[in-house]
Amino acid sequence: KMLRRVLCTVLFVGALPSLPDASQGHISVVLLGATGDLAKKYLWQGLFQLYMDQVSSGHSFTFHGAALTAEEPGQRRMFEVLKQLACPRDEAPDRCAVLKDQFLKLSQYHQLKTAENYTALNREIETLLRQEGLKEAGRIFYFSVPPFAYTEIARHINSSCRPPPGAWLRVVLEKPFGHDLESAQQLAAELTGFFREEEMYRVDHYLGKQAVAHILPFRDQNREFLDPIWNQHHVERVEIVLKETVDAKGRTSFYEQYGVIRDVLQNHLTEALMFLTMELPANISRAEEVLQCKLRAFQSLRGLQKNSAVLGQYQAYASQVQEELQKAQDYISTTPTFAGVLIHSDSLRWEGVPFLLTSGKALDERVGYVRVLFKNRAYCTQSETLRDAGHSQCKAKQIIFYIGHGALNTPAVLVSRNLFRPVMPKGSWREAVGHSDLHIFGQPLSDYYVYMPVKERDAYSVLISNIYHGRKDFFITTENLLASWGFWTPLLDSISHQPLRLYPGGVENQHLLDFEMVSGEVAFTLAEPVELLNPNRLMPSDYRTIQSKFRQSPLVSAWSEDLISQLASDIEKTAIRAVARSGQFHLALSGGSSPVVLFQRLARHHYAFPWRHTHIWMVDERCVPLTDTESNFFSLHTHLLQSVRVPYFNVHPMPVHLNQRLCVEEDRGTELYAKEIMALVANASFDLVLLGVGTDGHTASLFPQAENGLEGAQAVVLTESPIKPHQRMSLSLPLINRAGQVFVLVLGKGKHDITTLLSRVGHQPRKWPVSGVSPSSGQLVWYVDYEALLG
Amino acid sequence: KMLRRVLCTVLFVGALPSLPDASQGHISVVLLGATGDLAKKYLWQGLFQLYMDQVSSGHSFTFHGAALTAEEPGQRRMFEVLKQLACPRDEAPDRCAVLKDQFLKLSQYHQLKTAENYTALNREIETLLRQEGLKEAGRIFYFSVPPFAYTEIARHINSSCRPPPGAWLRVVLEKPFGHDLESAQQLAAELTGFFREEEMYRVDHYLGKQAVAHILPFRDQNREFLDPIWNQHHVERVEIVLKETVDAKGRTSFYEQYGVIRDVLQNHLTEALMFLTMELPANISRAEEVLQCKLRAFQSLRGLQKNSAVLGQYQAYASQVQEELQKAQDYISTTPTFAGVLIHSDSLRWEGVPFLLTSGKALDERVGYVRVLFKNRAYCTQSETLRDAGHSQCKAKQIIFYIGHGALNTPAVLVSRNLFRPVMPKGSWREAVGHSDLHIFGQPLSDYYVYMPVKERDAYSVLISNIYHGRKDFFITTENLLASWGFWTPLLDSISHQPLRLYPGGVENQHLLDFEMVSGEVAFTLAEPVELLNPNRLMPSDYRTIQSKFRQSPLVSAWSEDLISQLASDIEKTAIRAVARSGQFHLALSGGSSPVVLFQRLARHHYAFPWRHTHIWMVDERCVPLTDTESNFFSLHTHLLQSVRVPYFNVHPMPVHLNQRLCVEEDRGTELYAKEIMALVANASFDLVLLGVGTDGHTASLFPQAENGLEGAQAVVLTESPIKPHQRMSLSLPLINRAGQVFVLVLGKGKHDITTLLSRVGHQPRKWPVSGVSPSSGQLVWYVDYEALLG
Repeated sequence: KMLRRVLCTVLFVGALPSLPDASQGHISVVLLGATGDLAKKYLWQGLFQLYMDQVSSGHSFTFHGAALTAEEPGQRRMFEVLKQLACPRDEAPDRCAVLKDQFLKLSQYHQLKTAENYTALNREIETLLRQEGLKEAGRIFYFSVPPFAYTEIARHINSSCRPPPGAWLRVVLEKPFGHDLESAQQLAAELTGFFREEEMYRVDHYLGKQAVAHILPFRDQNREFLDPIWNQHHVERVEIVLKETVDAKGRTSFYEQYGVIRDVLQNHLTEALMFLTMELPANISRAEEVLQCKLRAFQSLRGLQKNSAVLGQYQAYASQVQEELQKAQDYISTTPTFAGVLIHSDSLRWEGVPFLLTSGKALDERVGYVRVLFKNRAYCTQSETLRDAGHSQCKAKQIIFYIGHGALNTPAVLVSRNLFRPVMPKGSWREAVGHSDLHIFGQPLSDYYVYMPVKERDAYSVLISNIYHGRKDFFITTENLLASWGFWTPLLDSISHQPLRLYPGGVENQHLLDFEMVSGEVAFTLAEPVELLNPNRLMPSDYRTIQSKFRQSPLVSAWSEDLISQLASDIEKTAIRAVARSGQFHLALSGGSSPVVLFQRLARHHYAFPWRHTHIWMVDERCVPLTDTESNFFSLHTHLLQSVRVPYFNVHPMPVHLNQRLCVEEDRGTELYAKEIMALVANASFDLVLLGVGTDGHTASLFPQAENGLEGAQAVVLTESPIKPHQRMSLSLPLINRAGQVFVLVLGKGKHDITTLLSRVGHQPRKWPVSGVSPSSGQLVWYVDYEALLG
Repeated sequence: KMLRRVLCTVLFVGALPSLPDASQGHISVVLLGATGDLAKKYLWQGLFQLYMDQVSSGHSFTFHGAALTAEEPGQRRMFEVLKQLACPRDEAPDRCAVLKDQFLKLSQYHQLKTAENYTALNREIETLLRQEGLKEAGRIFYFSVPPFAYTEIARHINSSCRPPPGAWLRVVLEKPFGHDLESAQQLAAELTGFFREEEMYRVDHYLGKQAVAHILPFRDQNREFLDPIWNQHHVERVEIVLKETVDAKGRTSFYEQYGVIRDVLQNHLTEALMFLTMELPANISRAEEVLQCKLRAFQSLRGLQKNSAVLGQYQAYASQVQEELQKAQDYISTTPTFAGVLIHSDSLRWEGVPFLLTSGKALDERVGYVRVLFKNRAYCTQSETLRDAGHSQCKAKQIIFYIGHGALNTPAVLVSRNLFRPVMPKGSWREAVGHSDLHIFGQPLSDYYVYMPVKERDAYSVLISNIYHGRKDFFITTENLLASWGFWTPLLDSISHQPLRLYPGGVENQHLLDFEMVSGEVAFTLAEPVELLNPNRLMPSDYRTIQSKFRQSPLVSAWSEDLISQLASDIEKTAIRAVARSGQFHLALSGGSSPVVLFQRLARHHYAFPWRHTHIWMVDERCVPLTDTESNFFSLHTHLLQSVRVPYFNVHPMPVHLNQRLCVEEDRGTELYAKEIMALVANASFDLVLLGVGTDGHTASLFPQAENGLEGAQAVVLTESPIKPHQRMSLSLPLINRAGQVFVLVLGKGKHDITTLLSRVGHQPRKWPVSGVSPSSGQLVWYVDYEALLG
């Protein structure tokens, strides 16, 4: 067999350099997919580098390429690749030539197709070790194969190729590791059936990029400077970016299934994000601690929503897909090739800091970087022209982990000179000088301390070295992987039918892909250019609010967004009038989903609202604790109260929770609330009551056929809802009808039927409680959006 | 007499142009201090401009210069000034020459020294009006005299020179209007004895600067664009700056009494600040509404503290003062010639936005501006080199009201092109083009829409026109003045012995006066250079807090201010640890006056405090409604809760007020509170309890000889205080002693005796309840200031 032949040759010439000091044992490296693209381009070179680095480590090595191809052609192809292995610039050519020769002799091809093939491979390794009297240290199986082949190979390795006790097994897996949370869980479950967690090394080659790999060491070595500023009070924003100029041509069969978020953001950019945001363990060389901290950082990420992302697709993509995948001319791909995503962490350290992750194909430049921009808190009294370059506190302060390409065209770490001079490990990073004409992020390079790697190393050679050293923190654990998919999957689901912005590609994109943050969401800054627009789409601002009558009362109608802003303004006006008149404003608010948008609008757009003089009352409440997410008050608190300054004393949640129980009649919560109203609200007449309407015609928590609350003297009542949670507390119709103003808000297509019905029926509160809303001396106004009104 | 002579001449030549259409009546303008510097430089020119502008208005005019100087020399001096009056460039030279001739003929000098002088002046005006058959429209008295002369002149005008009913009186006053709140109140009270509020026009000539005067109209005319962005969510910071190159040489007798804050910040810069921050009235041409909104803006300013300002003095100032004021060689002036002040508004609109007011003498350039910098919320996907100038959303967005001098050397309004194209009144502002090589605030001028006045007008001529038009909103009302002094006086008091940073002056200042914001305060960015330091000066930070033991427990002692900041930091650290451990922090706080300063410090300086995860409990409460100002909770709310974001659910006031009555036993408030504690606080062990000590040794509301609360199973008790209000609710000693940490705060000389006593006695809770504080498994720390400790 080949192995023996090689070995014999080696032994014959007496040149096997690992034997003399093979005291640490023998390592067998098996590269599955030995003649594939990745192997050709990076992996063999990485293994050769490992051999060169570790030839005197005390370990002996053999390298086994494997594939489905038959022995002879496979072997030929593989050795063609091996002959092309390059000697690194920093290696003495003589030594490299000798080592390359040895590396070739230690390498061998195997067809691995059937169970027998695996058994044979195992036997060969065992035989060799026995024959050479070598102790076995471990085996590395590198899966450079498509993911559908994983399970089969894993089964064979587990059953036939495990090393004997005392030697380790490391299987190295290449992405994709699933397509969403569910598929990732499934794949992980399958692999877990064959391998222990510590045996699996999932590669994200970004973790081998020198600038990314240095984020944690940098944070560790510069704790003194970073501790006070590595937080929400000092960091303005963080950008994690990978821009590509190439497009997906020729790869659409893969790309069409994945798209940019799965291809780049879910893995590469997210990993960089974690290195930035995680708490720093006391000792970063303890892989387990690093992995735990990283996992906790995942847990504090705030969930993503549809509007957390802007998405684009380069214009040629559709025709490339049609051509390569033989799709029809009208086939429309919904796969994004560009994404900008806004991420927030709710950890105390990062609350409020925007993390912007951006990647795309067919952009204007190829570049990758992680940029931490600090807040500018200085005022420079000296005029600009007199400020020292780099030292002025008024210049931008930033730390950049420059991954590669772009204007610098090398990995680098940059720190603004007005921040601090960083501690960098002398052996691996050197300070760069010169390049003074270059501008990076708006500043001349001379404004930064710039460090570049002493040796530029390919990511795979870094990673292969880390596999050899068993540094699990350079790889993606199962927990980490599932945490990441758990984070990204809701966004992927919610955007699957999201419209994409088309972009021409390259410099032609101009400002088309610029985006901005607005209220915790992102949006493209430019309106969609007209030529790309669907000309039939109506813009909301084309419609003005309609004023007329509904059920004999004033009606305000518009598209929902305009309607909400009109309603918010009207509430503010009512509030200002009430405060001017009586010094206070008593506002009773309903629960439900429609008011949420209103609450948000009031919180963000009405700065002159007299909150300090406003009393907030509840129209109705569900019988759940106030801190329950189902509670109307909880929703009001989340969307409005926590953003404005209503004094504590002026907030009046309904007492649904007394004596540790919910809405029990003898606790007299309704009486308590009624008394509070009588005590504080003149004549028990609220200045403004905001109501909604249910599809069954209910309003407040007064449902059709209700026993309480439609009439009678009781101001506050307990009622039963047909839907859960059944028990409710509600203001009564008679109390509502004492109000100075009542606004009824009706939103959405779902309300069209009831709206139509209500426009026809008279005063029939037992059938449709809302028809009984009729303020005795106040004013009723209907706010109904076009969808509810017109269907 | 001169007047008659002039009039006769005029009538004789038939050239009095105001007579033909003097249907609106006659206006007499009296300029007191007619030959002083201000009159020479600006006021006569402004009056001449008024005459030119209003010659066809239907009003006739006479101009009366007045001073203490005798008739003959005064008249000569005044006419020398008048002959120098310039014709504006935009006026036809012929028309101007004729009008100047008329203006001189309508002008006359009066000695105004004695009561008789004033009576005579009044008589002359009356005589003239009668003789010429003119209706009197009004009289303007312009006080261009030192403030000590105000009262005397005001008395004479009031008693002898009031116009008859139907005609108005306007008295124009020049600053300084006092030296601090008290002196301003006194001066205002005196003037109010002579004039009605609507008769007084206090000049701040900054309100006549074209760029400042245009702030409100700009906000009004650009409401559509500004409404969404003129608030804390979009504005990053505001800078209001007046830099001078000149120093105070020759003027130290004035300057030494005032300094830069009184000279520039309290008036000019504050007025500009108000125009920016005030809510915009619906109609800005209604002076009364404008003034009301401005006054409300003052009310929402957050109080200034010592560290709200950085102060400097140019090095030559001391010797200039010594020389000009004949002071000794070792005389040290504490007058600042440079100040940078950080101001916050607590209005909902501006909360959190830093307003930086800066002014100084002997700086590197002369310039004045108001700069509003917006937050950068955009990410530009396109690389920098490809971004369009001015249109990229990633460029800085700013609006600048350029007051004058500096690089532009003209008043201007600049709006970044990526913001919006502003609406500007065509008649008075024109768009400027060119100047493309100039950089303003880091950007080429071409990045802005730039507008310059069509006619550049001197501030005084603008103001004199506004006096004529009765536009009171261009002047400082009494209320406005006192509000401003009320705002600045506490800072002026607290910094009166503050060390000043010495600076060499001009470009030599380099970065010496740059400052930065840290936790709501400001500090110079550079440490004080050694050569400028007074080696004998003791810095507050030279005092370290003393750590030792008190009653066998750790003692922290310092001067009260340092003690409070140490205590606040320690509470924050405890909070962060508790939240890291259990996700929440249970803090029980005492009432009384000592904690108020602590509350304020926590509210202002501890931005990393985990308020969202903190539960606030009360150690004790007075049996009064929570909204009573005597309530401990009310004080806590005012000084802390309303400034931080503790969720509503996490705030736990004591239920002293149930069923409309206070602390009635059968209402079981104590049980209710105990239950709430048991339900939420693990093991009923608060993370931190903050206590105080009374002069009688009480702590919480546990008084000597108390029947309840010193021992036993009750967690919360009703107690009796020897002082009003007698009834109290309090946590019991056993509950307090379950806490993880107990901090006891003791402040002030008044506590010296009890502190001394406590240092000697043992565990005697019935005599001295505080001696029973002894956490069973937690830690007790004493925070005692030097006054309490050392007397």
